Amino acid sequence: MKTAICPGSFDPVTNGHLDVIERAARLFDRVIVVVVVNVDKHPAFTLSERVDMIRRCVTHLPNVEVDSHNGLLAAYAGEKHATAIVKGLRAVSDFEYEFQMALTNRRLNPGLETVFLTATEDKMYLSSSLVKQVAAYGGDIAPFVPACILPDVEDKFRKDGEQ
Amino acid sequence: MKTAICPGSFDPVTNGHLDVIERAARLFDRVIVVVVVNVDKHPAFTLSERVDMIRRCVTHLPNVEVDSHNGLLAAYAGEKHATAIVKGLRAVSDFEYEFQMALTNRRLNPGLETVFLTATEDKMYLSSSLVKQVAAYGGDIAPFVPACILPDVEDKFRKDGEQ
Amino acid sequence: MKTAICPGSFDPVTNGHLDVIERAARLFDRVIVVVVVNVDKHPAFTLSERVDMIRRCVTHLPNVEVDSHNGLLAAYAGEKHATAIVKGLRAVSDFEYEFQMALTNRRLNPGLETVFLTATEDKMYLSSSLVKQVAAYGGDIAPFVPACILPDVEDKFRKDGEQ
Amino acid sequence: MKTAICPGSFDPVTNGHLDVIERAARLFDRVIVVVVVNVDKHPAFTLSERVDMIRRCVTHLPNVEVDSHNGLLAAYAGEKHATAIVKGLRAVSDFEYEFQMALTNRRLNPGLETVFLTATEDKMYLSSSLVKQVAAYGGDIAPFVPACILPDVEDKFRKDGEQ
Amino acid sequence: MKTAICPGSFDPVTNGHLDVIERAARLFDRVIVVVVVNVDKHPAFTLSERVDMIRRCVTHLPNVEVDSHNGLLAAYAGEKHATAIVKGLRAVSDFEYEFQMALTNRRLNPGLETVFLTATEDKMYLSSSLVKQVAAYGGDIAPFVPACILPDVEDKFRKDGEQ
Amino acid sequence: MKTAICPGSFDPVTNGHLDVIERAARLFDRVIVVVVVNVDKHPAFTLSERVDMIRRCVTHLPNVEVDSHNGLLAAYAGEKHATAIVKGLRAVSDFEYEFQMALTNRRLNPGLETVFLTATEDKMYLSSSLVKQVAAYGGDIAPFVPACILPDVEDKFRKDGEQ
Repeated sequence: MKTAICPGSFDPVTNGHLDVIERAARLFDRVIVVVVVNVDKHPAFTLSERVDMIRRCVTHLPNVEVDSHNGLLAAYAGEKHATAIVKGLRAVSDFEYEFQMALTNRRLNPGLETVFLTATEDKMYLSSSLVKQVAAYGGDIAPFVPACILPDVEDKFRKDGEQ
Repeated sequence: MKTAICPGSFDPVTNGHLDVIERAARLFDRVIVVVVVNVDKHPAFTLSERVDMIRRCVTHLPNVEVDSHNGLLAAYAGEKHATAIVKGLRAVSDFEYEFQMALTNRRLNPGLETVFLTATEDKMYLSSSLVKQVAAYGGDIAPFVPACILPDVEDKFRKDGEQ
Repeated sequence: MKTAICPGSFDPVTNGHLDVIERAARLFDRVIVVVVVNVDKHPAFTLSERVDMIRRCVTHLPNVEVDSHNGLLAAYAGEKHATAIVKGLRAVSDFEYEFQMALTNRRLNPGLETVFLTATEDKMYLSSSLVKQVAAYGGDIAPFVPACILPDVEDKFRKDGEQ
Repeated sequence: MKTAICPGSFDPVTNGHLDVIERAARLFDRVIVVVVVNVDKHPAFTLSERVDMIRRCVTHLPNVEVDSHNGLLAAYAGEKHATAIVKGLRAVSDFEYEFQMALTNRRLNPGLETVFLTATEDKMYLSSSLVKQVAAYGGDIAPFVPACILPDVEDKFRKDGEQ
Repeated sequence: MKTAICPGSFDPVTNGHLDVIERAARLFDRVIVVVVVNVDKHPAFTLSERVDMIRRCVTHLPNVEVDSHNGLLAAYAGEKHATAIVKGLRAVSDFEYEFQMALTNRRLNPGLETVFLTATEDKMYLSSSLVKQVAAYGGDIAPFVPACILPDVEDKFRKDGEQ
Repeated sequence: MKTAICPGSFDPVTNGHLDVIERAARLFDRVIVVVVVNVDKHPAFTLSERVDMIRRCVTHLPNVEVDSHNGLLAAYAGEKHATAIVKGLRAVSDFEYEFQMALTNRRLNPGLETVFLTATEDKMYLSSSLVKQVAAYGGDIAPFVPACILPDVEDKFRKDGEQ
């Protein structure tokens, strides 16, 4: 049985992320979506909010689990006996950073492969920061995030605006 | 009559920005330069300083107006009946981000086209952050910003240095 | 009245080209689509076949004309009093070549601006060579070319296959 | 059981190709390396030479088969019930072309995923054309191709030089 | 006698930096490694720690000196009668930023050339921020930094973790 | 004494090439410009025409010699005791190919460094193929090639046109 992990900030999960998760679920026997703690970033959603939102989006994917991790991804992959890290590729700048991470993770855990997938064209240019930017100005984010988390994202930014 | 908007931080306006504004003014009947409020950035110049500096640089362009906006650009373009957003392209990394914005703006306002222009070669690699970096160390910024705002930029950084 | 020219090989015209032509037709008063003779390439379709196919695809666009040209584009643009060359941008490698052409054309004809547009996401990765490759192997090209020229392209490659 | 196909010209197979094939063999239950006929290219090795050389390089990989195909890859993948196409990524220009192919193949065969892997750093910049260029001038190609095909490549270029 | 300067943040120096410094030392008669003060960044190591760590790594290179500078690099190069700035190139995004800096420095000091070198493949994707990220999570950084500074980096992050 | 070689097709030499040669001549004690025979390309000018044109353009550079070579560059550099290959960098696509060549040459000749320089902005986008394209259509190539070879290039394309 091949296990893959799908790491990210998911702040919040977008239709682009979900598209990549669905593809990974077809390629691997078991997929663990991992919300990674990034100390440098100031997320809009708490870790448990982010885990919870993804869980609600993947109920139709029986071989997908959701988890969070604070530490080296290479070590986490080892613990879970994962064969692969799955990443969605959007653009050239993504590609270079992901390349660097892939080579580093391979050095830290030689049995761990990084696998890159591409989202569908119309979801390829989506990003969480774009979603937050549009939401912050009251724009319509329905085309960008899964319907089941739409109220969460709208709520978060309405509340923030009121502060 | 075709209206285009030319958005940016313009912190401060550079010869590269001015070059793109002049080209836009030849292509469209009416051009609105819009200083966009970006909550994530800490600008060196206030919004009104930035608007004022651009105004002084475009007095020779009768079909160019200067404005500022805090909100979604796609909505602003709609209010102004603009057909196009005009952006200068410098480099590959610009290109990818601008691509993402262009596709997002088109989804938020389907009648809105993003049009990319290239500056003259010798202005292509200019950026506001470069100007600020050179000015902060007392370097000569005369080749990089329009002459009419040179004292403003030098003044800002001299004062800041004295603090 | 602003005139723009839309140059290319169009061997054959794709849905991606048509998308860019339609956008150009909204931005400019008059658009001339120009099939450019490229001596280095061995086109699948003759010059007049290519012109004819485009003409049939743009009948719904009253301000669009179709022409062909063998020579410097900058000179052609001058003759037609065009203000702008319009090009669709797909990817980073396009971007660099187009950049070089834009700077060269500007030097040969200083009043001529090159304007870059982006196609809709789902048409962004289309190219004529891809269409020909799929057609050559008997694949379905209906998603890639305008319906009105589909028989022409299928015919061309059926005949070629029989030779 | 998940089947992946690994397509390419392999003219000749390099250490970089072999590295990607070995990674694919760890990720999927069955891997079919497919030498693709490309009518535009003039290969140095015949189709059967290329298939034979790869076969000798993958004898240590029990779940890897070698085949050749003249036609649409998406159709071939369908016949073989393959879930994925595996491609090695080297550089930005690779990335864009592969992107385009991945989106096209997905449209021609919606169940077919393209998966990108990265070779080890020291094999990342290898290419068949580089190998041929070095061999043509009598340079040492031992660091670039698997030892078991070294005589074949040297032989080919010695003979060609004598003609 | 040709003098080159090798500027950077070196927070901390990595095997990739050292590789580029060694190459520069073979190309130029005298090389000055300069730790540049960057007000925007919050370095993990103090300026004197960074200078000291580099000094210990270059004891085998008799024509290499280490210095620090707070100000315009172009002016510093002028004071030192340097002919060239030497920079290591890793990736496309590096390339664009470095291009911009090279053109700016040339304008500020016309006699100053920027020279780009590439590190060995297996050091090409290394960066100080990657080292810090791995160290912060207790990962093994021995493959990434020179052995003589390994205790310094481990110490710094152990202490920081205890705070 | 440090020797550098400056390889290229130079078909014909452009102002961009000359700019890079002049920079190399300031950085190194001796520079050998080498016209490299590329069997895949069909040059417009013969090898001796190309060597002769460069010679006439570098008479003001006493430490620059011009030569031609048919074979591996790494071997040629070894014979000439060259420390470095100097290449001008224009764009991202250049960068990747040059990277690959630099790593290959280093493997074939470990003492050989590849050094990248950038041309002046207004010469950065020049290429020999662009010059030939403009000349073939009777466009003005005076801004693109050194004045001393202008008649040679015009002559070549006038004659070719008459054939």
